[in-house]
Amino acid sequence: MIGVFDSGIGGLTIVREILRKLPGYRIIYFGDTARTPYGTKSPETIISYAIQDAEFLLEYGAKIIVVACHSASSVATEALRERFPDVPIFEVVSPSVKKALAVTTKKIIGVIGTRATISSGIYQRKIAAIDPEVKVYGNACPLLVPLVEEGWLKKPETRRIVKKCLIPLKIRGIDTLVLGCTHYPLLKPVIQAKAGRRVRLVDPAEEVAIEVAEFLKANPRFEEKLSRGDEPLIYVSDLTEAFERVARLFMGRRITLLKADCEMSHIIKPHITKTG
Amino acid sequence: MIGVFDSGIGGLTIVREILRKLPGYRIIYFGDTARTPYGTKSPETIISYAIQDAEFLLEYGAKIIVVACHSASSVATEALRERFPDVPIFEVVSPSVKKALAVTTKKIIGVIGTRATISSGIYQRKIAAIDPEVKVYGNACPLLVPLVEEGWLKKPETRRIVKKCLIPLKIRGIDTLVLGCTHYPLLKPVIQAKAGRRVRLVDPAEEVAIEVAEFLKANPRFEEKLSRGDEPLIYVSDLTEAFERVARLFMGRRITLLKADCEMSHIIKPHITKTG
Repeated sequence: MIGVFDSGIGGLTIVREILRKLPGYRIIYFGDTARTPYGTKSPETIISYAIQDAEFLLEYGAKIIVVACHSASSVATEALRERFPDVPIFEVVSPSVKKALAVTTKKIIGVIGTRATISSGIYQRKIAAIDPEVKVYGNACPLLVPLVEEGWLKKPETRRIVKKCLIPLKIRGIDTLVLGCTHYPLLKPVIQAKAGRRVRLVDPAEEVAIEVAEFLKANPRFEEKLSRGDEPLIYVSDLTEAFERVARLFMGRRITLLKADCEMSHIIKPHITKTG
Repeated sequence: MIGVFDSGIGGLTIVREILRKLPGYRIIYFGDTARTPYGTKSPETIISYAIQDAEFLLEYGAKIIVVACHSASSVATEALRERFPDVPIFEVVSPSVKKALAVTTKKIIGVIGTRATISSGIYQRKIAAIDPEVKVYGNACPLLVPLVEEGWLKKPETRRIVKKCLIPLKIRGIDTLVLGCTHYPLLKPVIQAKAGRRVRLVDPAEEVAIEVAEFLKANPRFEEKLSRGDEPLIYVSDLTEAFERVARLFMGRRITLLKADCEMSHIIKPHITKTG
């Protein structure tokens, strides 16, 4: 199976894209809705969550892993590759960087994402490693995730907040904008309108699906290991009606969410002297 | 010590109020920032988190527990009392209900809160048990938490979103409005303006602090067990600069956050046959 994990439901945009590019392969997804979101949390916490998420997928038979979450891709990819050296691990930052560099003409690229993604500075580092002349400007837009999850895709409040998020990037003269969070592609029309028609949007979901497809073509040894199946298995660590509604929004159709059997034991070890 | 827990940082508004009403008592706080927010999650998940949070406080020496989180107060209080029968457990719903009933004249009360709090219907049930003639209308306003956490307390977008949240309650003719989430008191000026001057706002932080003070006065046996100390001990399960910034916002002054030594082992037990 192709394993995909995300901090929540947003990664389903990537499942949708993989199904489009690689029909017939069985996908297993894990959305950590019990601890969502990751983007406001520290790198250490995100890394420990990402490792558990990957373990879930491998335990269920995934042969390759796609990190759909930008925050986890930004801070946890290295730790995941160290922990699971035999598993091909794909993430959303590298293919987005590749695409952004391919389409920018003025060599000024903007990135929007969660606080964790933007503070990591990963886009700047990865782009500088390939072409140090390219200027990269990032802006954290934490309000966009809750707006999308409320389904407020076209409301005036959303338009205003998107506009505000883009101002610091527009004044830098970007010609390319990476949508650095799984939720943002749902805001494409508003983002395109506020960024300006000439700004090229990079949707990481499309790029990572292309990368996985190319990898499988080049590596039949992994391709052979993948099972076939039409309907993806979508597991979540917490299940509510709201999550089901958001899942429909992201997949563009009704989809069954399965509750993963998790034990949320966040074992607390006191390490101070009792004083009370 | 007086133990206070919350899904995150918001419960510090309650610490602030308890410090004001009960100066000199030592407070220990646990904010579950590694899994925040709770309000979007299922009752089962919130209950399991709340029990762990209470265990942390008791382990560190808390003698009474205040559930600062409205979502946990709404869905987990009963489970907490069953699990810890010897510990006095306070929560934010009951004192807010008492206050709302005391101040309403038209007997039409509005409640705003997270999705978990509003869906639980707890305000309706508790109020109906005391005065079945009172009408209670709730509305979930999930966007207000991220707006407060961004520090957007007075921005035009916040005003518009608050206005939208209150419309369904205003058309019902409410004369009293319960701020059913730790974050909302920071929006008091905007909420008061949009609700109308005649609507009385109920701030649960104040009410729960009064309830704890009255309990200690009436129960010297518990009062004697409480240790003294000026500065509260504020523990969090995840620590970032953004959480520190929000903590300052809620406490109205600089405050040290201590990282609790948690093991976030969300142990996943596969229960399907491997197919990949």
